[in-house]
Amino acid sequence: MDIAKRFKNNPILRPKDIKPSSKEMYIECLLNPGVFQFDGKTWMLCRVAERTKQIEGSIKVPVLDANGKAEILTFDQNDPKLDDSDPRVITYDGKNYLTTLSHLRLVNSKDGKVFTEPDSYKSINGKGEYESFGIEDCRVSQIGEEYHLTYTMVSEIAVGVGYMSTKDWKSFKRQGMIFPPHNKDCAIFDTKINNKYYALHRPSSPELGGNYIWIAESPDMLHWGKHQCIAVTRSGMWDSARVGAGAAPIATSEGWLEIYHGADENNRYCLGALLLDRDNPAKVISRSMKPIMEPIMEYEKEGFFGNVIFTNGHIVNGDTITLYYGASDEVICGAELSIQEILDSLK
Amino acid sequence: MDIAKRFKNNPILRPKDIKPSSKEMYIECLLNPGVFQFDGKTWMLCRVAERTKQIEGSIKVPVLDANGKAEILTFDQNDPKLDDSDPRVITYDGKNYLTTLSHLRLVNSKDGKVFTEPDSYKSINGKGEYESFGIEDCRVSQIGEEYHLTYTMVSEIAVGVGYMSTKDWKSFKRQGMIFPPHNKDCAIFDTKINNKYYALHRPSSPELGGNYIWIAESPDMLHWGKHQCIAVTRSGMWDSARVGAGAAPIATSEGWLEIYHGADENNRYCLGALLLDRDNPAKVISRSMKPIMEPIMEYEKEGFFGNVIFTNGHIVNGDTITLYYGASDEVICGAELSIQEILDSLK
Repeated sequence: MDIAKRFKNNPILRPKDIKPSSKEMYIECLLNPGVFQFDGKTWMLCRVAERTKQIEGSIKVPVLDANGKAEILTFDQNDPKLDDSDPRVITYDGKNYLTTLSHLRLVNSKDGKVFTEPDSYKSINGKGEYESFGIEDCRVSQIGEEYHLTYTMVSEIAVGVGYMSTKDWKSFKRQGMIFPPHNKDCAIFDTKINNKYYALHRPSSPELGGNYIWIAESPDMLHWGKHQCIAVTRSGMWDSARVGAGAAPIATSEGWLEIYHGADENNRYCLGALLLDRDNPAKVISRSMKPIMEPIMEYEKEGFFGNVIFTNGHIVNGDTITLYYGASDEVICGAELSIQEILDSLK
Repeated sequence: MDIAKRFKNNPILRPKDIKPSSKEMYIECLLNPGVFQFDGKTWMLCRVAERTKQIEGSIKVPVLDANGKAEILTFDQNDPKLDDSDPRVITYDGKNYLTTLSHLRLVNSKDGKVFTEPDSYKSINGKGEYESFGIEDCRVSQIGEEYHLTYTMVSEIAVGVGYMSTKDWKSFKRQGMIFPPHNKDCAIFDTKINNKYYALHRPSSPELGGNYIWIAESPDMLHWGKHQCIAVTRSGMWDSARVGAGAAPIATSEGWLEIYHGADENNRYCLGALLLDRDNPAKVISRSMKPIMEPIMEYEKEGFFGNVIFTNGHIVNGDTITLYYGASDEVICGAELSIQEILDSLK
């Protein structure tokens, strides 16, 4: 089942549409945008995964130093201490390095379909020891005039959830790590419930448990507690290996509607929905038995990492969700879904 | 190096010294006590790991139901869906179960050496879906007249840190999970610093990162943020595989002194020390190159799981730390250490 109406101009953004951050780098993937409205336009905060230009016989990987400046490490391809068998991660002398380094880039659009880079806004880059391997997959929640950014901090030490806030998209208040490792896929609800903030997040465990969606509460968005699991993986189903939240849940007459991703053992990523109780979002009312969107188009089936639909951003207008998503971990696409149709599919 | 003066009456408590919680169970291990002073006595909150009495041809495992009542599951030993090759965990039809179920039991002592079970205090048992496989390894921090208990919640869903508080050890305020999975070894500082609570904790990661000690801040002990890593494992050393906090850090003239455990690839558990900055405990001043205590006695080398010294409780009196510890994951022992000697060893 797939109830999404894809944009006719998909993919709406590809790696070649964006300038690399330096001459030494090229953009391998452009994906997984956080989405928001600002200054009368629709904006995407895209994840730009860059790779260092390679020279034969060596492997170059980018790492950020303490000041957030990209440093290029070069390894001899014949060095016996080097293991470069995985295209995403290399190991040298027992230490892991990512082959790509991600940062976040702003693009905007008047119609929500054609996006370009604005002149006067800078990219958001990793900074400090917990972001030395970059920052990824940012969710943006707007509360009042403030935007709350939750993103994956990646380093040799940990994969955790970072939080920063902004009002003007030019200055950012960095607040450090709000969910300790191993954690990602964090989305803050855009409304307080019973005078508390809520967030969905996705811890992962090396033993007992798995890659499940959890919910937490906070008085201030900086400190989080009362962690409860709301969705586990389901053996034999489309979301058997991992599940993770998309963007902030959508308030509907029937409860909070959350569009989440689920992957199976073959790493095929589809989207499904969770309906959460309006007053107690830790209580799950229903959950998709089948995906509401799955990789069926050529650009969703083939690419850097094929068979992937991953969303962490959308705009809601009446019954219509305009959903933006990363396809095949390489390009950015858009689609429209009807809230009522999703709710009907959950019955 | 080992600078601990062990009690002459070690082990001070063994499984046979405590009554099982029911006729169907026997105590396999008595270990890892939280320690505190109350009502003019020294108290230990011990972890009691119980096993169901077995009948030939079947495997019985205990699981707590939603009300905290132990339910015995029986599996046919010849059932092809059963995997009982690991003495600690069995797998049936893809689901994991622990072979032992832990609860917490109070014992007290006038001299800190001979402990007995008091009549009018009950055990603390797992309760609810996050504690269906029991609760383990509780740290106790006293702030004013209130005791703050941080312990490992274990279930099929997750291993995380639970928190409850008490003033009288008869009624407890359960506050849910304060650190999401995979997390354990949490100790709350017994003093506020710069008007914030601090805790050490130990997240574990399935990829990038490892079993490291982290610190977090809180306004209320319920919600935690600003997670920072203070100690990683050290390749080739005694703490190469995992590290985790002991009890709450000790205030000294040179900073916060934390006794922590480190294990190597052979699962040999020793104790070492961390010295943290008095005003900013996320800053590490120094760390033991060699253990301050290691398994050397027979009762530390042989047992349910040999070569283990694990502490999560102590009493401080002047320069003397009276440290209580689990030896070989089976019995409880005591030892005295000099704060000055530990500080000297860190120079």
